[in-house]
Amino acid sequence: MALIVQKFGGSSVANAERVMNVARIVTDTYAQGNDVVVVVSAQGDTTDDLIEKAQEINPKATKREMDMLLSAGEQISISLLAMAIEKLGYPVCSLLGWQAGFSTNSVYSAARIKKVNPERIQQEIGRKKIVVVAGFQGLNKYDDITTLGRGGSDTSAVAIAAAMHADRCQIYTDVEGVYTADPRKIKDAVKLSEITYDEMLELATLGAQVLNNRSVEMAKKYNVIVEVLSSLTHAPGTLVKERVKMEKMLVRGVTKDTNVARVSIIGVPNEPGMAYKIFGKLAAENINVDIILQSVGRNDTKDITFTVAADHAEATKDILSKLELTSDLKVEIDAENVAKVSAVGAGMETHPGVAAKMFQALFEADVNIQMISTSEIKISVLIDKKDADDAVAAIHAAFIPEEK
Amino acid sequence: MALIVQKFGGSSVANAERVMNVARIVTDTYAQGNDVVVVVSAQGDTTDDLIEKAQEINPKATKREMDMLLSAGEQISISLLAMAIEKLGYPVCSLLGWQAGFSTNSVYSAARIKKVNPERIQQEIGRKKIVVVAGFQGLNKYDDITTLGRGGSDTSAVAIAAAMHADRCQIYTDVEGVYTADPRKIKDAVKLSEITYDEMLELATLGAQVLNNRSVEMAKKYNVIVEVLSSLTHAPGTLVKERVKMEKMLVRGVTKDTNVARVSIIGVPNEPGMAYKIFGKLAAENINVDIILQSVGRNDTKDITFTVAADHAEATKDILSKLELTSDLKVEIDAENVAKVSAVGAGMETHPGVAAKMFQALFEADVNIQMISTSEIKISVLIDKKDADDAVAAIHAAFIPEEK
Repeated sequence: MALIVQKFGGSSVANAERVMNVARIVTDTYAQGNDVVVVVSAQGDTTDDLIEKAQEINPKATKREMDMLLSAGEQISISLLAMAIEKLGYPVCSLLGWQAGFSTNSVYSAARIKKVNPERIQQEIGRKKIVVVAGFQGLNKYDDITTLGRGGSDTSAVAIAAAMHADRCQIYTDVEGVYTADPRKIKDAVKLSEITYDEMLELATLGAQVLNNRSVEMAKKYNVIVEVLSSLTHAPGTLVKERVKMEKMLVRGVTKDTNVARVSIIGVPNEPGMAYKIFGKLAAENINVDIILQSVGRNDTKDITFTVAADHAEATKDILSKLELTSDLKVEIDAENVAKVSAVGAGMETHPGVAAKMFQALFEADVNIQMISTSEIKISVLIDKKDADDAVAAIHAAFIPEEK
Repeated sequence: MALIVQKFGGSSVANAERVMNVARIVTDTYAQGNDVVVVVSAQGDTTDDLIEKAQEINPKATKREMDMLLSAGEQISISLLAMAIEKLGYPVCSLLGWQAGFSTNSVYSAARIKKVNPERIQQEIGRKKIVVVAGFQGLNKYDDITTLGRGGSDTSAVAIAAAMHADRCQIYTDVEGVYTADPRKIKDAVKLSEITYDEMLELATLGAQVLNNRSVEMAKKYNVIVEVLSSLTHAPGTLVKERVKMEKMLVRGVTKDTNVARVSIIGVPNEPGMAYKIFGKLAAENINVDIILQSVGRNDTKDITFTVAADHAEATKDILSKLELTSDLKVEIDAENVAKVSAVGAGMETHPGVAAKMFQALFEADVNIQMISTSEIKISVLIDKKDADDAVAAIHAAFIPEEK
């Protein structure tokens, strides 16, 4: 008998039929002798509908009231799922975020979980109940409802799993697991049976939108074994954990990210502290900078090129224009025509030659590399957006099929 | 400066436009220098929509889960109203039932308020905020959400007014106040400027659906001055209070109730205890009996006739059939063709002749009286349903116009 936390997203509970489907998955797990805690998001479009209602009345509503409004979404879905579980004849109890013991800080709409006190959940499990918990929400020190921001239900599930030392945290999605590449585009894409937290973090950051990043970080911190799997098929998913079985695959995922902009600052004075001035200011405004490249420019200046999320291109431009480093400075931003393609694999660091092989694949596919960035477990290149799919295919073909 | 509690029902906040209308009423009251606590119900059809969602999944859902589901309705309406008030530039804070301090017993779907601890409301008012409270809901001793049942928002408002010693509890509805008869049917119907709790209770019980009865009982108990008024017009409403100005009107309201069934038990043995057996059993099953009439039958038996709500006719039949008083007993139930018409007025008891005048009016309108019941402040008659509107008009014409 194990303690299993299961999480279902909004599309998994979008209508009565899907709610019943989730109820069957949950009760099957329970019937096998497990204790089960289920975390659910708001039904399908509920959150968007509620946001629309708010917009109609006051587009500048305070975030406190938005959180009060939006948290009604999970309240609806947990009670409906509980009713579906009741219908299948199993004992069940739905709990709101605050009932389930979620304390957060007070950053409305993007709160962080400070603590989960699972006392009530444990009580209900002691009564042999399946416990259905509202994801995405908690309570701050003022006894006001907060939400964790979109995708927060993953984090809610992992937080419960961590607090209760659950044997497994299953995140049900509309894909069957984590693939070596987007299976809709790369027909040879392989489902991974296991993946490390670090690999998952790289893949999530890079746009393989399977798991919310904060949830993976939390899973890593508390060593929660996460399983990503589909609520529609009954296939086994992908386990995310600290150590994975040794496999031959060096590259475990190839991803593309088109939400990227390339920023070039040309003619930066060759003085100490310039990089600090630029990147310090961007960091203060919460703009994450990814690949950074500095090269020697003309007349004793230097050129600094870096990437940011395309969403942040405008804000980056504003910030740089206010810096007034020197009058000759020229800023060029391209948020339209670039893409970042990455190969990720925890085994990379001990295997030289991965980069060379990746560059060879790109050369043979006639893809020009604009920038390169490497970490212990990934290699990213910035390329022309139109080449991105070809690049992913070429890198995937070079590494995955021969190794699986 | 006064403390005013205002309550708005579901139709008053049915859409964005109406929510803004309510926000203007509230902020006008606040701008006049008052402290304001607003209680709202769920928006228009929200409750019905949520019930439908539940029905689709599990028509036999437990009431605990139904309460969890339905209480999301007020959560949506309080946050939307708060946003509307924010838009008008006023400080505001929405509170759920439990945040506002509502403790109830554990009868899910029909919980009774045990206590209101208005500490949080007082805090927010201390910060000069308008406080918007979710009506209809509370928390039981298990920290689970309960609902008070339909119409419970009136009770929520009166309970807050009582706990905070508010100067007035304004119940906004879609009528302008309490009328001497249904103004849609009786063109001479007069709006009362004041009415006593007892009169209001009789009128509410008798089907003048302006105020929930439990709320009037609570208002009477804690001496809360209630004002019934319209959220659409700016006309003054009707004050409900302990003592009213002496007015000439003896009869203060004429109502009809068609949710009534006449039950006749013919051939009851003429032994002691028969009435106890019958009515004790009905009371045990929570069936309220109204007018009771006992007459001598044939062969040393008696006939007992009484009325119950038409909704309870079937249940009454079942209970009586199981009583097995004697094999000769005959039970006749008419839930289709009868109506109860009543005249209510606190001054009645000190003025003889009211009944006579009422019976004369009915005689002149050619209405046959089947049963009569009187209390200190009302006279009710059971008549043929098809005569009901005529009877109301005749009684109203006999008492009201000449006295106003």
